[in-house]
Amino acid sequence: MAIVLGENRYGKAENRLFRVTRKGDVHEILDLNVSVSLSGDFADTHLTGDNAKVLPTDTQKNTVFALSHRLGPLEPEAFGIELARHFISTQRHVDGAEIRIEQFPWRRIECTGTPHPRAFLREGAHVRTAMVHATRAGEGFDAAVTSGVEGLVVLKTGDSAFRGFLRDEFTTLKEADDRIMATEVAAQWRWLERDPAMLGTVDWAESHRAAMDALVWTFAEHRSLSLQQTLHAMGEAVLDSRADLSAVRLRLPNKHHFVVDLDAFGIRNENEVHIAADRPYGVIEGVLQRDDAPLPPSAWPEW
Amino acid sequence: MAIVLGENRYGKAENRLFRVTRKGDVHEILDLNVSVSLSGDFADTHLTGDNAKVLPTDTQKNTVFALSHRLGPLEPEAFGIELARHFISTQRHVDGAEIRIEQFPWRRIECTGTPHPRAFLREGAHVRTAMVHATRAGEGFDAAVTSGVEGLVVLKTGDSAFRGFLRDEFTTLKEADDRIMATEVAAQWRWLERDPAMLGTVDWAESHRAAMDALVWTFAEHRSLSLQQTLHAMGEAVLDSRADLSAVRLRLPNKHHFVVDLDAFGIRNENEVHIAADRPYGVIEGVLQRDDAPLPPSAWPEW
Amino acid sequence: MAIVLGENRYGKAENRLFRVTRKGDVHEILDLNVSVSLSGDFADTHLTGDNAKVLPTDTQKNTVFALSHRLGPLEPEAFGIELARHFISTQRHVDGAEIRIEQFPWRRIECTGTPHPRAFLREGAHVRTAMVHATRAGEGFDAAVTSGVEGLVVLKTGDSAFRGFLRDEFTTLKEADDRIMATEVAAQWRWLERDPAMLGTVDWAESHRAAMDALVWTFAEHRSLSLQQTLHAMGEAVLDSRADLSAVRLRLPNKHHFVVDLDAFGIRNENEVHIAADRPYGVIEGVLQRDDAPLPPSAWPEW
Amino acid sequence: MAIVLGENRYGKAENRLFRVTRKGDVHEILDLNVSVSLSGDFADTHLTGDNAKVLPTDTQKNTVFALSHRLGPLEPEAFGIELARHFISTQRHVDGAEIRIEQFPWRRIECTGTPHPRAFLREGAHVRTAMVHATRAGEGFDAAVTSGVEGLVVLKTGDSAFRGFLRDEFTTLKEADDRIMATEVAAQWRWLERDPAMLGTVDWAESHRAAMDALVWTFAEHRSLSLQQTLHAMGEAVLDSRADLSAVRLRLPNKHHFVVDLDAFGIRNENEVHIAADRPYGVIEGVLQRDDAPLPPSAWPEW
Repeated sequence: MAIVLGENRYGKAENRLFRVTRKGDVHEILDLNVSVSLSGDFADTHLTGDNAKVLPTDTQKNTVFALSHRLGPLEPEAFGIELARHFISTQRHVDGAEIRIEQFPWRRIECTGTPHPRAFLREGAHVRTAMVHATRAGEGFDAAVTSGVEGLVVLKTGDSAFRGFLRDEFTTLKEADDRIMATEVAAQWRWLERDPAMLGTVDWAESHRAAMDALVWTFAEHRSLSLQQTLHAMGEAVLDSRADLSAVRLRLPNKHHFVVDLDAFGIRNENEVHIAADRPYGVIEGVLQRDDAPLPPSAWPEW
Repeated sequence: MAIVLGENRYGKAENRLFRVTRKGDVHEILDLNVSVSLSGDFADTHLTGDNAKVLPTDTQKNTVFALSHRLGPLEPEAFGIELARHFISTQRHVDGAEIRIEQFPWRRIECTGTPHPRAFLREGAHVRTAMVHATRAGEGFDAAVTSGVEGLVVLKTGDSAFRGFLRDEFTTLKEADDRIMATEVAAQWRWLERDPAMLGTVDWAESHRAAMDALVWTFAEHRSLSLQQTLHAMGEAVLDSRADLSAVRLRLPNKHHFVVDLDAFGIRNENEVHIAADRPYGVIEGVLQRDDAPLPPSAWPEW
Repeated sequence: MAIVLGENRYGKAENRLFRVTRKGDVHEILDLNVSVSLSGDFADTHLTGDNAKVLPTDTQKNTVFALSHRLGPLEPEAFGIELARHFISTQRHVDGAEIRIEQFPWRRIECTGTPHPRAFLREGAHVRTAMVHATRAGEGFDAAVTSGVEGLVVLKTGDSAFRGFLRDEFTTLKEADDRIMATEVAAQWRWLERDPAMLGTVDWAESHRAAMDALVWTFAEHRSLSLQQTLHAMGEAVLDSRADLSAVRLRLPNKHHFVVDLDAFGIRNENEVHIAADRPYGVIEGVLQRDDAPLPPSAWPEW
Repeated sequence: MAIVLGENRYGKAENRLFRVTRKGDVHEILDLNVSVSLSGDFADTHLTGDNAKVLPTDTQKNTVFALSHRLGPLEPEAFGIELARHFISTQRHVDGAEIRIEQFPWRRIECTGTPHPRAFLREGAHVRTAMVHATRAGEGFDAAVTSGVEGLVVLKTGDSAFRGFLRDEFTTLKEADDRIMATEVAAQWRWLERDPAMLGTVDWAESHRAAMDALVWTFAEHRSLSLQQTLHAMGEAVLDSRADLSAVRLRLPNKHHFVVDLDAFGIRNENEVHIAADRPYGVIEGVLQRDDAPLPPSAWPEW
């Protein structure tokens, strides 16, 4: 059995791009973390160290900053499509380009209610994400686009139960009628459209706001019988928010908050004082999808 | 020269206390990280392993949760004073108690403008801090209280210059008329009053909001000639916000955002596209204090 | 287009299991981080909140600790197979079980050359990894096993060049004849055999040592023309170390160490003084595989 | 009460300096993280933004790299003293310079027993530390030097008990005759000598090895009745290792490993299967010092 080169890719990760756009005295900012990864005909450098087809990752870094200047303050998904277009259109041996972008949220500082034109506060621990998985297709390319959010921490103190679960020899958990439910949402939603020209009309910012509202509101208002059921409701709400999404994937860790047993001290603690636990934690993962949505292009699998 | 035991302390760190307070259907939450450290007559356990005077850190943990139930949802400073009171009043050989508390900020989820009674979103990456350094004094104790904030990330795209600095053989920095100023504020403000009874009347929540506003607004509106000058203005604003503060200490890392040189590509980049750098970073630290404020009790020094 | 439930799984992550095995006065330790994830017929809890088929993640946690006691100090791969066997054989509606294990390395403390029987030092920042992806198959199950390492930081100060690369309008990088090559190896190697009974004969510890030696020695001795070529050589060396491996996947970040330009100070710095950079960094990823190795079972894909 | 400027300092933190020294084909490396902080007459920049006395932190960064080239591969303490000398001797308004250095440990890769001349493996998660707190004194300066280690994780499975402790209303802990003791050592040892000229003769590398051995061996061999007693023994051993140390400070978190209760499953778990806990954790801190050692210069206090 000969040993052969299989899947491979390379690129420059975590280019920390910060843009300022001046509209007179009012400035707008865009704070991104951009990662590029290219795949294609790169066997030579692997096999012999011949780098004739290798666009250095240093060049990729320069490209991120130079194209950002040329293109202006694009939304992350749109910037990702343009970066992919650049690499696929200028490098004939590149078949695929994956652009991952994190956007850090900021809001204007308000001094006694007035938004400041040039001062900002980092808002939230979450990041907005965008992924463009571009594949060469004829003279152009196919752009599988995913939008998402990571690190969105939410918690509810009511409307969450967990009962009627399966029991085996190792089960000691008690049923809960009213428990704290807390999670750190990681969500990604896929776009049906893959034609870069057609994707040019999407309002990425507005759709992101709508998906965030769908996630957060559903989490808040859902009467939960299990975290799985809440995941399902949250995913449905995202898909319901726009007809042009094909699927949504959620990863919801169950961040346990245990009621502290104070009986030994004569204190009856009725769901009032809890300890927030670190590890272990539960993890619920699931995909909601439209039943006739076309399959996504193959992606780098988990090993 | 004989070897002797010097300063020492011990305790349980990072007790993750999460409280729910139910007011009918509306719930309020309090999310704290509580660390306890006791000092006093603990030579025996160090010298011989005789633990007769050692209150286990496990007991300290139980105390944090049990007292939280007894006392209800106190503000961090008030809870710290009560924890210190407990240890000093019940353990005759304890001379000092340091209680450090971090409070994680949450806000209610709003569904189409209506705050939800029981669902919350983690807001911001910063934490509110409180430190009570209690020292036995006669029948009671003296409580040196510090309030603060950590991890408050702010950035401004104008009104920041750095010129006229000292030059030596290793200086290559160019003067800047208009640079990005970004920092992650760590601030602590000390209270003049140390009598626990008198401190019972302080509105800790309101004073924290006022200090936060002073920090953020001053950062936004200050026309900065150096980060040191901005630090000074921010510190003054905190002290100006309340007459009963004795001093404020600020630590402001200078989170560099460098303009990317795109000249090689024929692009003139005028403070538009930046790279956010990780390391190294500048650090400015300073104390602002009232000139006749009494000295604080000795604290654990930096080595 | 109806919305349907797609891929899903759930489990308890990061169970921190620490075992002591006493052989008279000599103790041996095993320090693991065990994550369980189950897939199968879980639609009910997603759709209606009916938990009759849901084995709580709390039970999964109990199972990890109880089975560890029953089974004794197994190697991570062997323990993963037994955990998977348990869940698949006792839960008829579970079709798949993924067990991920990290093992933290320790070595005995040596006092003047003598290994201590009961005292240990945490060795290295890297972790050994094992993944068992088990799938129900008839009365038994198929076990796709992956072994690996993460966080293995290596660096060489010679025998690394990068020349003859492709140039475009954004290329400014200079060719390097002699650069520092530094990376943090993440590697996983797949086992051909998937029959749990046959896998019972593998010497997991010995094979892990052999793969680690292959990775580290090849990194050290390879005369590198590109990091891709080094990756290829390292992967081949792992596969060469054992005929029963089907493939190896490597992820090698290029941790840049830039020569500091000291010309402005009249200092000619010839590859002596460097700055270690944080971000951005290069990333090279690739798979080496035997050309007739059967395809692995489908895995959770990257989105 | 007027508001005045109190203690202040500023500098460049975390300059990641990596040095290669070539001795023919054999290379030696030095991997440092260098932080500089200066204090002195800096009121102007705080009060008016006049930067005439401010040596930019960018210049400090340049100085770290340029002086490293000039001075060659010095041990961290020696390099710190020279950096302090530079800033104090060239800047008349600088009264104090604090240089903090972390050194990351590497060892040569051994291929079948032979150390490789140019390839290295990152060894351990711990870092060696050095701090030079220099204060202007007449024409020269006084150098208070501290050496240390952080992140040194050690664990013992025997010879550790905790009995006879104080009990109060919140005590539920059971006595332990034989528990796991695990900690992550942070230790700093001060040098008596403060004359930079005299300090030039110290063998910093050898003394660091001796102190590390003293810490690790004492941890291993001590029959512990409390972590405080172990701290005391470890500190004494460091001071005993050299007559020219004045004091040592240790911070030992108690990283709890709890025996898992498996009684509910009919399993009697006798100190075999444990869970490693994250939070909360105990912390024991203490100083051992020679009884006639002069007081250190005042340092930045904990607030």
